[in-house]
Order: sequence, then C-alpha cells, then structure tokens
Amino acid sequence: MTYEEKLAQRGYTIEPVALEAGKLVQAVRTGNLVFTSGQIPIQGSRSIKGKVGDDVSLDEAQEAARICAINALRAIKTLVGSLENIQRVVKVFGMVNVAPGFEETPAVINGCSELLIEIFGERGKHARSAVGMSLPLNYAVEIEMVVEVTSPPPP
Amino acid sequence: MTYEEKLAQRGYTIEPVALEAGKLVQAVRTGNLVFTSGQIPIQGSRSIKGKVGDDVSLDEAQEAARICAINALRAIKTLVGSLENIQRVVKVFGMVNVAPGFEETPAVINGCSELLIEIFGERGKHARSAVGMSLPLNYAVEIEMVVEVTSPPPP
Amino acid sequence: MTYEEKLAQRGYTIEPVALEAGKLVQAVRTGNLVFTSGQIPIQGSRSIKGKVGDDVSLDEAQEAARICAINALRAIKTLVGSLENIQRVVKVFGMVNVAPGFEETPAVINGCSELLIEIFGERGKHARSAVGMSLPLNYAVEIEMVVEVTSPPPP
Repeated sequence: MTYEEKLAQRGYTIEPVALEAGKLVQAVRTGNLVFTSGQIPIQGSRSIKGKVGDDVSLDEAQEAARICAINALRAIKTLVGSLENIQRVVKVFGMVNVAPGFEETPAVINGCSELLIEIFGERGKHARSAVGMSLPLNYAVEIEMVVEVTSPPPP
Repeated sequence: MTYEEKLAQRGYTIEPVALEAGKLVQAVRTGNLVFTSGQIPIQGSRSIKGKVGDDVSLDEAQEAARICAINALRAIKTLVGSLENIQRVVKVFGMVNVAPGFEETPAVINGCSELLIEIFGERGKHARSAVGMSLPLNYAVEIEMVVEVTSPPPP
Repeated sequence: MTYEEKLAQRGYTIEPVALEAGKLVQAVRTGNLVFTSGQIPIQGSRSIKGKVGDDVSLDEAQEAARICAINALRAIKTLVGSLENIQRVVKVFGMVNVAPGFEETPAVINGCSELLIEIFGERGKHARSAVGMSLPLNYAVEIEMVVEVTSPPPP
C-alpha cells in the first residue's frame, strides 16, 4: 500500500497546492533535503484559530497539528512528485499558539507526530521540538518540517 | 548586474563583518549549505528595538526585517567570498518581538522576503515561518537563514 | 585527549540515551548532518524548571543550558557511536522560558555555547539564535542542534 493509500484510508487526500503563496514558497529542495514553510491549520473553508488552553482545547489543537502535517505533505508531494519519494522525516518544529500557563505543547504536536509514524513507519520517526509562542493571524498551531527525499533533483 | 550592484542601487552596501561575535559565529558552512545566526536590526549606530505593535510600528518593523536580511547577506558574503555564490535562499525563520495581540508577523517579515526576491529573483524565493516571541535585548526583529551556495567548500 | 576525556575532566559523563522518547527521536541523521530534538535540562533525578528572570536565576539558567548541551551530546554519541565523529557544531537554536521583561537570553545560552567551544575548539564554534518563548512543562531552557559528522552513514 502506498503512503497516499494509507492516508486515504484515514480520510486524508493529498491534493497539490500552489507552491508560491504571498512572499514565500511552501517547500524548497536543496540536495536531498526539503525544507517546508510553517504550515497552518487550514483545510478547505475551515481553519483553527485561537489560544490553546483558552479558546482552543487540547483535542482541537491536536487536530490542528494533524492538518498542519497534511498540508506539509501536500507541499512536499507537489514539489517532489510523490510521497513515495520521502526517505525520512528528519525534523519537525512544532509551534503552539499558547495561552499563558499552557505547557502541554508536546501533547499538541503529537497530533502531527503520531500521524507521521502511522503512515511512514520507521521513516516517519523524527527529531522534534514542540514549543509555545505567538502565531500569525492567531492560528492555533504552525509546523515546519525537514524531510529527506530520494528522487533525483531536478536538472 | 551582480547581486551587489542591485543592492547598491537600493542604497545597501554589503560590507564584511567579523564572523565571530561573542560566543557565536555569524554563519557556518556545511557542505553546500550555510546556516546563519539570528540576525538583528543593527545598522551602524542605529538599532531598532521595542515590541512590535506597541513601541514599534509595522513600517519600522519591516525596515528592521530588511536590515536583518542585509546583515545576513553580509555574513554570508564574508564566509563564502561573494553573493554570486548564492545558489538559492532555502529557508527564512523570521522572529518578531510582538506586543500582546500583534498578529501581523508575516507582514513584518515580508520586509526581508521582498528584498530577497527583488535581488535574487527565482533564487531568492524561500520557505519561511514568521512568528512572534520575546527577542534578546528587546530587538524588534531577528531573522535566521539557510542558503545553498555553489562555490567549492574550503579544503 | 578525546572529547569525552575533556568532558570527564569537567565532571560530565556522556552515557547512552534511549533514542526514542515518546513520539520523537532524540537525534536523526541525514547525509552528514545530525538534527537533534529540543533537549531539556534533566540530569538524573534533577530538572530545572520555571520562568527565567523570575523563578530561575541567570546562573541557574546557564547551568540548565549546559545540561541541555550534554543531553544533546549524549543523543549524538548514541546515534553516531562516538563524539570523535563530530566534525563541526553547525547550529544551535537556544530557547529560553522567559518571564515577561527578561531579555538576557544570549547570556543564558552562553552556558551551552561556552561548553561546546571549550570541548570542541574551532569545531565547536556555531551559528546560533537565543530567544524567549514558552517551553513545554515549564522547563527553563530547551536547545536543539545541527552538527556535521564524519563517520560513514549506516548501510
């Protein structure tokens, strides 16, 4: 079963994205590494905003982290052609829009990490930080990734 | 026209820096990647400090982001000899010293991103996050970059 | 004298760690780079928690940064077999759990940077950011690193 088929079984479709958004690019390749932009929890017309621990519950924040992960995978697929080209998820930097006193940021980012491990197995296991800060436009979670890919770089 | 000539047309000179500053190095190369330290908005005797959205306006913060970009380019040029060796700006991590409730961090970091795209064209387009936190010594903006360079590494 | 012998002279032993911890891996290799997870100030039964500048003094926070550095080295050694395989400390991202108004984050992270330079000399000199945010479980400091290693990658 391909990674996309596994994701589809869980209800996630990995549609292509516009790689250029405003002044940034959603993912850039250098050698065998892809660096993504910070991905935000927008899915169709839905977005998850607010301070986690106050406006946003832990459950909602974990869902936000899953949506960020899916958006990162969409950007990577658009850039390198297929999720099958992902050799390893190297690094996840998970940023949580915390209310004062909210300290459970690792539990939030587990929403992303668990999904990556479920789909990619050993190749989905990654180094990570999961920390609290103030996020743009009050989004609840933002996640950036570094992944190693195997396909030859574009000429 | 070289990248430096383009920058000079906009009034920016890319003078060499002391690569070692206190306990850090302004830029380090590994393979074809250069990682910069977090660059702060100091230009000669001028520096931009304060909380953005309170002490510092959006316009001033965008100018701070441009100065951070120039300081990153100065460090990279000092390390690799010439801006012509920049093959791609891979990643920008933009940190804004936000006042409570200030959410327009992407607009702030656009000051950096727009300059990079103006100067480097397609090679200046980068993955990015633009987020809010508390910055050292109350600087308004701090920016770190990863760039790919083409010159051979030192022996 | 090996790097471990230098560390032992200062009272630090670099014991192996469990690389997998919860949903993350403490260090991941890609090519000649190792990315670590955010390391926290836990040493045996001791941990350093609280807001720096309020609950935690600058001295205690510098000690926390040193412990984070040691934990990063333990993870890297476990992954690549020996600290002698470290070719260069490329990048340190130092995160400080700041009380409102605390701005001396570079002084905190110097606890980590000074140790790396003492032990690794020129190879320990790194690019760095040292910034303030809200850390998980109220740990005082969290530090992630990128290092270049020389040993051949695993088959």
